[in-house]
Amino acid sequence: MLKGTQSIEFDDAPYIISQASVVGKKEGEGPLGQMFDLVEETNLFGQNTWEEAESEMQKQACQLTLNKAKLKPNEVHHLFGGDLLRQGIATSMGIMELQIPLFGLFGACSTSGESIALSAMSVAAGYGDYVMAVTSSHFGSAEKEFRFPLAYANQRPLSAQWTVTGSGAFLVGKRKSHVRVAGVTIGKIVDYGLKDSQNMGACMAPAACDTIIQHLRDFGRQPSDYDRIFTGDLGYVGQSILFDLMRKRGEDIKQNHVDCGMLIFDQKTQDTHAGGSGCGCAATTLAAYVLPKLESGEWKRILFVPTGALMSTVSFNEGKSVPGIAHGLVLEHC
Amino acid sequence: MLKGTQSIEFDDAPYIISQASVVGKKEGEGPLGQMFDLVEETNLFGQNTWEEAESEMQKQACQLTLNKAKLKPNEVHHLFGGDLLRQGIATSMGIMELQIPLFGLFGACSTSGESIALSAMSVAAGYGDYVMAVTSSHFGSAEKEFRFPLAYANQRPLSAQWTVTGSGAFLVGKRKSHVRVAGVTIGKIVDYGLKDSQNMGACMAPAACDTIIQHLRDFGRQPSDYDRIFTGDLGYVGQSILFDLMRKRGEDIKQNHVDCGMLIFDQKTQDTHAGGSGCGCAATTLAAYVLPKLESGEWKRILFVPTGALMSTVSFNEGKSVPGIAHGLVLEHC
Repeated sequence: MLKGTQSIEFDDAPYIISQASVVGKKEGEGPLGQMFDLVEETNLFGQNTWEEAESEMQKQACQLTLNKAKLKPNEVHHLFGGDLLRQGIATSMGIMELQIPLFGLFGACSTSGESIALSAMSVAAGYGDYVMAVTSSHFGSAEKEFRFPLAYANQRPLSAQWTVTGSGAFLVGKRKSHVRVAGVTIGKIVDYGLKDSQNMGACMAPAACDTIIQHLRDFGRQPSDYDRIFTGDLGYVGQSILFDLMRKRGEDIKQNHVDCGMLIFDQKTQDTHAGGSGCGCAATTLAAYVLPKLESGEWKRILFVPTGALMSTVSFNEGKSVPGIAHGLVLEHC
Repeated sequence: MLKGTQSIEFDDAPYIISQASVVGKKEGEGPLGQMFDLVEETNLFGQNTWEEAESEMQKQACQLTLNKAKLKPNEVHHLFGGDLLRQGIATSMGIMELQIPLFGLFGACSTSGESIALSAMSVAAGYGDYVMAVTSSHFGSAEKEFRFPLAYANQRPLSAQWTVTGSGAFLVGKRKSHVRVAGVTIGKIVDYGLKDSQNMGACMAPAACDTIIQHLRDFGRQPSDYDRIFTGDLGYVGQSILFDLMRKRGEDIKQNHVDCGMLIFDQKTQDTHAGGSGCGCAATTLAAYVLPKLESGEWKRILFVPTGALMSTVSFNEGKSVPGIAHGLVLEHC
C-alpha cells in the first residue's frame, strides 16, 4: 500500500465516476472551449460579486457531477474542497447549500490534486462509497485577492499568468467507471527563495520537479511509463524551468509533458502571457480534456501533478519568498 | 466502519502518541498556564512579525511533539495542518523546514479537529505509521487579518472573543499509547444567517449543535456516555446558545459540556470578554489539559468538537453571513 517514502498505491483503486467543468467566457473561447460542460457568458453566473460567482461555479460543477452519476448530494459521504481566496470562502459559500459534510483544504493551485488524492484515499479506505472533490478559481476574485482590482487596469508583466475562471468537480467512488486513481504522491514544500508573485511558474517549477522525481523513484518508473505527465499551471516560463531542473536530476520529460496552463488559452490570440493558472485551470482541464481521453482508452496512464504557489498578500508584503508544493496522481484507464 | 450518515468508527483505532502546546504570554498567565509545554514571553518567538511568530509556533509545536516520541521529521509520512490566516500561510511557512509531505487545510477554528480526524483516518487506513496534525492562531496576526491592527486600539464588544496565541501539534500513529481516536463525525456547514463577526460564538453554536446531535445519533449514544463534551471556542455567549439549541432538539449537555475558550482565560482578570478563540485555543487546550486526563484514565471517553466560523474580510464586507462548521472526535483512554 505505502510505496517509497511519499507515495501510496491503492490495493483496490477507486474510480472517478463522473466529473464536470464550469468555466467563464474567455475559457469558452479558448482551445478547449467546446469540451467544457458549461460556459458562462458574463463571468458573474447570475451573481453580484466575483466571489459569489466563484461559489456559484463550485455549486454548479458539483451539481452537474452528481447529475451525471444520478446521485443526490446526501448520497455523498463527504467532500474535499478548496479555492484560492482567503479563508477558502468560495468553497464554504459554494457547497453550503449541498449540505455534504466538508473537509476544507488549501494547497493553492495544487488543491485540485490534493482534493482528488484525499477523496481517493477516503474511498479506498472504506470511508464512503461516494466522496467528492471540488476546486475553483476566478480571474476577477483572484486579481482582487492577490494583485489589483480589475478596474485599476494595471499592466501585466510577460511572466504573469491569467487566472482561469472555472471550477472542476469529481465524484470518486467504488462504482466502476473507466478511470481509476491508482496512486498518489504527496508533495513537500519546496522553496528556491523566489519572491516574484508575478512569476508563479518559476516559483512552482521546483516543487513540480521534486514531486515528479520522487514519484518516479517511489513507483520505480520512467517518464515513458506515462502517456502524458501533466502539470497544473506552470505555464511557458515554468515549463522551461521544469525541463532544466529535471535534466539536472537526470530525467527528460520533454516528450510527454503537457501543462494545463498552456493548453487552456491560446497564447497568441488571447493575451494571456505565460499561460493559464489557478486551481480552476488544472481542475477544468482534467475534467474536460484529460479524463475523456483516459475514459476512451486513448491514454492508458497519466501522471497529474498540479502545483501550488504558497503565498498570501501579507507574506508577499512582508518580503517572504513564494514556496511551491505539488501533489501527484496516477490516473489509469481501466 | 461507516457509522450512521456522517461518522466513521475505526476498527483499529489509531493512537495519539504524543502532543505539544506552545503559547504566548497571556495564555501562560491564564488558568492552564502551568500545563503548556512552552510559554513565550514576547509573543514574537524571536521573529519580526506576528505571522512569522505564528509559523515559528507551529514549527516548535511539531518539533516538541516529535521529540517526545523520539522521532525525526522524515519518519512522519505526511502532515495535515492549517491556521486562520489567508492562504494558510502560517502553516506553509512554519512546517516548510520540517520537509514533511503536507496536506494544507482550512476549517477556521474547526481545523484542529479536521486535522486530527484526517490524521486518524490516514493512519487507520494504513497510509502511514506516523501522521501529524498541527494548527495555530495568533492574537496579533488574527486581529490584523480579521479586524484591526493592534496599534489602532479599537474597543472590543463584550461578545468578542480573544484569539489565543498558540499552536498544538499531535502525532497520530499505530504505536500504542493511552489515548486513541475511536471515531469521527464530519461536520456540515450550518448557516443561521448571522452576520456579526464580533460574535463568533453565536455564529458557531448552531454548527456545534448539529454535529453533536448527529454524532449522538450516528453512534447511538447519550451525552452521559462521555465524561466531557468539549467544544473549541464557543465562549460564554456561544455556550448559552448551544444549550438552548440542544434543549430544543431534546438533548441536555449542561452536565458535561466544557468549552476550551472558557477554560483558557480567566474572564474576570484577563479582560477577554466572551472567552478565547482561534484554532490554537482548542488545539493547545486539547494538548495541555484534555489529553493528559485521558492518558491518566481520569476520563475514559470524551467528545471533542472544535467549531469554525467560515468567513473572510471580503465575505464580511460584501454582506455575507457567517456560517459555522464543527467536526467531532471520539477520544478514549486505553
